[in-house]
Amino acid sequence: MKVRYTNDIAVIGSGRFGQSVVDQLLKLGKTITLIDKDEENLRSYKEDIENLIIGDAADIKLLKANKLDKIGTIVVAVPENIEIVAALLEIKAQNIIARATSIRHARVLRQIGVETIVSPEYETGKRTALIAANKSFVRYSENLQEIGDDFVIGTTVIQNKSLDNKVLKDIDFNKRGVTLVLIKSKGKSIRPNGLSKIHHNDIVTLIGEIADVNAAFEWLNQND
Amino acid sequence: MKVRYTNDIAVIGSGRFGQSVVDQLLKLGKTITLIDKDEENLRSYKEDIENLIIGDAADIKLLKANKLDKIGTIVVAVPENIEIVAALLEIKAQNIIARATSIRHARVLRQIGVETIVSPEYETGKRTALIAANKSFVRYSENLQEIGDDFVIGTTVIQNKSLDNKVLKDIDFNKRGVTLVLIKSKGKSIRPNGLSKIHHNDIVTLIGEIADVNAAFEWLNQND
Repeated sequence: MKVRYTNDIAVIGSGRFGQSVVDQLLKLGKTITLIDKDEENLRSYKEDIENLIIGDAADIKLLKANKLDKIGTIVVAVPENIEIVAALLEIKAQNIIARATSIRHARVLRQIGVETIVSPEYETGKRTALIAANKSFVRYSENLQEIGDDFVIGTTVIQNKSLDNKVLKDIDFNKRGVTLVLIKSKGKSIRPNGLSKIHHNDIVTLIGEIADVNAAFEWLNQND
Repeated sequence: MKVRYTNDIAVIGSGRFGQSVVDQLLKLGKTITLIDKDEENLRSYKEDIENLIIGDAADIKLLKANKLDKIGTIVVAVPENIEIVAALLEIKAQNIIARATSIRHARVLRQIGVETIVSPEYETGKRTALIAANKSFVRYSENLQEIGDDFVIGTTVIQNKSLDNKVLKDIDFNKRGVTLVLIKSKGKSIRPNGLSKIHHNDIVTLIGEIADVNAAFEWLNQND
């Protein structure tokens, strides 16, 4: 039987970050190959993952023997990974998503040819700094992302009772420099248009520049 | 002279994640207090941060002596942090943002009273799994975030030449189940309205359910 791997995903490394990637992929119903040097780390996945490989992912023989060159996407989740990525590029692996631990590390990965780079510490650090630095974010938003330049997307609960049952076109978020991009009302999310209504306790997602989103949060959370 | 700390930010821990938070806060021009057990870790910040404290942040005496109860926001960036958080709650520290390394850890933090929890591995793991699991995300998006339920926000470059110079209301992203929430054209970002134009090579940010954003990316990136 010839096995085709092209839609499969391999994850290299099962530390905290690798585990988180694997857990999410399992939720998405994906078939996973998981590689780790340490048998102990793999033990908890014995039930859920058929293809567990113990070994050094910088070893080209191991990669070829396990057909990593045929796998659709490979996530390199270990922090010290330049040699592993080099080995994967050597066997002409397809889409590689590699973890970078710093801007310098990301630069090296990009130079050797990795296109998709993720960085848990850097990405969440940026987000955490934004939350820490802006009063209404720390008070009202648990969900805030920078999306380039000074733009952020953030989520808050509407506390301001004067906004209850208002139609969006009558509120004009636009003049406050923000766009309302998602409304979650009674557990259901919708992409709003001008005729959508918002209610007290709805969760709304806004996009705009940092200062404008910050100010809009203050306003949405006013309660007398 | 009485120093008021209320707008300041303290960061506890200067590992990879703590450093990333500090670096971003310095970029935002904030005054920072940085605490770490290890003098070595603090060395690189001697030039940039006035208030460096070497010591155990779970020590209530140390926290009080350094007036941590007067600091506006405290980011607990160390991974093993339950005792530190408990000590901070004990001295009635103001806004605490604590790092969780797993869902279980987050649960404990929430139970002892932390409202704002960040989780580098979990957040970036979720995002990485989404990118790895969806063909057009891995090929076309470097920037993708889940924003609750099945909704994601993602960024891509417009390659489809038939869309060059088109007005948004004539394209109707809405019928594809996505909202275009940001256009970056020639280095400048705008929140679009129906009359905004898109161009070949613009970077656009979409919001919608995973499958719809995935499909829209395929379409925006078609090139003959």
